[in-house]
Amino acid sequence: MRMVDLIKKKRDGGTFDKNEIEYIINGYTDGDIPDYQMSALIMAIYFSGMSNVETADLTIAMAKSGKMADLSAINGVKVDKHSTGGVADTTTLVLAPLVAACGAPVAKMSGRGLGHTGGTLDKLESIPGMRVSLPMDEFINNVNRVGLAVIGQTEDLAPADKKLYALRDVTAAVDIIPLIASSIMSKKLAGGADAIVLDVKVGEGAFMKDYEDAVKLAEIMVDIGENAGKRTVAAITDMNQPLGLAIGNSLEVIEACETLKGNGCKDLLDVCLFLGSYMLILAGAAANRREAVCMLQDALKSGSGFGKLKEMVKAQGGNCEALEDYSLLPQARIRNEIKADKDVYVSSLHAEELGLCAMRLGAGRATKDDVVDLSVGIMLNKKVGDLVRKGEVIATVYANDEQRLNGVLPDILSSIKTSEEFVERPELIYSLISKEGIEPYNKR
Amino acid sequence: MRMVDLIKKKRDGGTFDKNEIEYIINGYTDGDIPDYQMSALIMAIYFSGMSNVETADLTIAMAKSGKMADLSAINGVKVDKHSTGGVADTTTLVLAPLVAACGAPVAKMSGRGLGHTGGTLDKLESIPGMRVSLPMDEFINNVNRVGLAVIGQTEDLAPADKKLYALRDVTAAVDIIPLIASSIMSKKLAGGADAIVLDVKVGEGAFMKDYEDAVKLAEIMVDIGENAGKRTVAAITDMNQPLGLAIGNSLEVIEACETLKGNGCKDLLDVCLFLGSYMLILAGAAANRREAVCMLQDALKSGSGFGKLKEMVKAQGGNCEALEDYSLLPQARIRNEIKADKDVYVSSLHAEELGLCAMRLGAGRATKDDVVDLSVGIMLNKKVGDLVRKGEVIATVYANDEQRLNGVLPDILSSIKTSEEFVERPELIYSLISKEGIEPYNKR
Repeated sequence: MRMVDLIKKKRDGGTFDKNEIEYIINGYTDGDIPDYQMSALIMAIYFSGMSNVETADLTIAMAKSGKMADLSAINGVKVDKHSTGGVADTTTLVLAPLVAACGAPVAKMSGRGLGHTGGTLDKLESIPGMRVSLPMDEFINNVNRVGLAVIGQTEDLAPADKKLYALRDVTAAVDIIPLIASSIMSKKLAGGADAIVLDVKVGEGAFMKDYEDAVKLAEIMVDIGENAGKRTVAAITDMNQPLGLAIGNSLEVIEACETLKGNGCKDLLDVCLFLGSYMLILAGAAANRREAVCMLQDALKSGSGFGKLKEMVKAQGGNCEALEDYSLLPQARIRNEIKADKDVYVSSLHAEELGLCAMRLGAGRATKDDVVDLSVGIMLNKKVGDLVRKGEVIATVYANDEQRLNGVLPDILSSIKTSEEFVERPELIYSLISKEGIEPYNKR
Repeated sequence: MRMVDLIKKKRDGGTFDKNEIEYIINGYTDGDIPDYQMSALIMAIYFSGMSNVETADLTIAMAKSGKMADLSAINGVKVDKHSTGGVADTTTLVLAPLVAACGAPVAKMSGRGLGHTGGTLDKLESIPGMRVSLPMDEFINNVNRVGLAVIGQTEDLAPADKKLYALRDVTAAVDIIPLIASSIMSKKLAGGADAIVLDVKVGEGAFMKDYEDAVKLAEIMVDIGENAGKRTVAAITDMNQPLGLAIGNSLEVIEACETLKGNGCKDLLDVCLFLGSYMLILAGAAANRREAVCMLQDALKSGSGFGKLKEMVKAQGGNCEALEDYSLLPQARIRNEIKADKDVYVSSLHAEELGLCAMRLGAGRATKDDVVDLSVGIMLNKKVGDLVRKGEVIATVYANDEQRLNGVLPDILSSIKTSEEFVERPELIYSLISKEGIEPYNKR
């Protein structure tokens, strides 16, 4: 087999078999196939496409390119959850403790933020002392003892994906749906969970701008998961505006705590309850969505969800007092309030631009090597459809550098649009993509 | 400007301007743009195409990527000639001396053989002592003194093309017409000639298998040349069977000598007269094709053409006695005659396969680093449409290694098809692609 012939095959519209895909992925991981052949192949895939079978084979080959995590020592059905990336989307920190409090073990490997989207690991690291890199046995022990643990992906998890992603990033090949699907799912399969709940974000602040593309991506991923023997569902949820109110690492930790204490943003909670209900169903802990949501709401009201978050933070070396006394979290020096100069409705909150503004304040990374400022960000007070009275605060900007703040502020202001007319609240959860036997959901 | 954005632009069907193309070619030549981005771009070009203006800009940027040869010290209009590569196609060695004998200076930079096609430099090197690498001033002096010189391309001639060609070779991107056109024409423009006669081969032994593709390639190349201020024409000629009778380096030198002595293969001579006539027209040495062909035939009959070849060989250090006494050329140890076992007509001679067989005997290179055996090859006695009597030799195979010969012989035999029915001689020269003001030719 020669890579040049395989490039030509795909270029000319051919379909790869499993052997050919393994040859490509193993060769690329080992360094036998150089980047310049791989990037040519990727561009051929952009134009010629990949069948669902090819995408599934690719995903499995990528999952097997490194060490597959073995979570069999954890009791119960382990359900993983993954979001394709959003702004003010701190669902993991709310939902994982709630699900764990309902008795389903959560063993989650998370990523870091890139571009306008945040990452769970960065958020967790704003808690003093918190360790997000645990040895595998400690990770497993914590899940068995506490019910949940959230750590970073191990170095040898799907190395083919790491190489491929870096290459796609510099060759205009990020937006290829089968490659997005295989990138996400290879890590999920290698991560060792028994079932997977996916949150595919759609809208101008998401990687998928169109509903149809989001459905296509969701369908391929559900297909891959199910074919690999893992029950998989994918929710399609809105990312035209930020999901919660907080954008920035310690700010999102505060929002997660407040939500678990019952004071959170309704949109964030609703998405957590929706995703969490399917996690409980897949874990076999609830028979249907109605029952699952009741369980989750009980865990919220009783405080057992918040208790789980504290237990997890403690088990991973974090100072859980900081979850009560937020002054123990990193603090920004400058706070700048944006106020309404008359009575208005919020008509749009440009999610991607707000995410980029938070990134420019220091909350995120333009490139993988950037260092994150955990204290800065944007705290919204209102969402689309909310009425803002004259003089009321719409958002507070947290910064540490006057000059940066002044550079970013005009873009934050122009990302927040208001109207004197009444504005309808937008849809939040569109649909659920799943195979038969799972309770359906469709608002589209 | 960022390469990743340019890849995306082309991928999405965009058109590059001159600045963008210069950024790409200069960056790639300097090593600032890595191979993996270039190969992604090339694949995007395969699918999205390039306009003729983009192709012309690309060609000029590639021509300027190294040192542009300055032939202004050569008196007269310098006409270059280039073939897209054929089998038993030793036109340069016949035509260049004839044209020079007619008073038009020929300063030619040639290439080496690759794959199933031969290269003029390898053929010349089978003449003992022959130097094909001359300093530029000696090259220019020789042309002014003798009327012709044939050398290898200088190291710094269009380095961007060298890099790009090597990359295309391993990324299934050899057969992209705008890139073939820019590769050929960048070297022609950098080579410094005033006018260019192209010989675009078409047929199963050529890179262009279809007549339409050949015309497309010819049209783009003529466009590029004319836009760069050089009169350019392109003949479309047949490569369904070998052009001449000799395949292999010293064998082709012998064929060239015999042709210049008036004993050559008619097809080879006809193509030489056709291409040569346009060289004389573009050089201003003849008013039309009729006059030009007469001049060339006079040079053939008088022996002045052959004289020019001997002068050139002598000027470049070669032993020109070898052009009379062929035993001074490299000799193959084994000669294997293929004879007809009954009276038949030759119905097809598979050019590509015969070229590959000669290569496998040692006459050519599978990769650039292979060493060539100058003595081996295949000498045909007949062409398609010729009658072969029972017992008559159809072809002689020249080899140095019994085992290799036995491995190749069955493939040579199956490349030669015969028929008891009468077979029509195929067309040889199809058409000429040119701009206005040049005498037309069209047999299609």
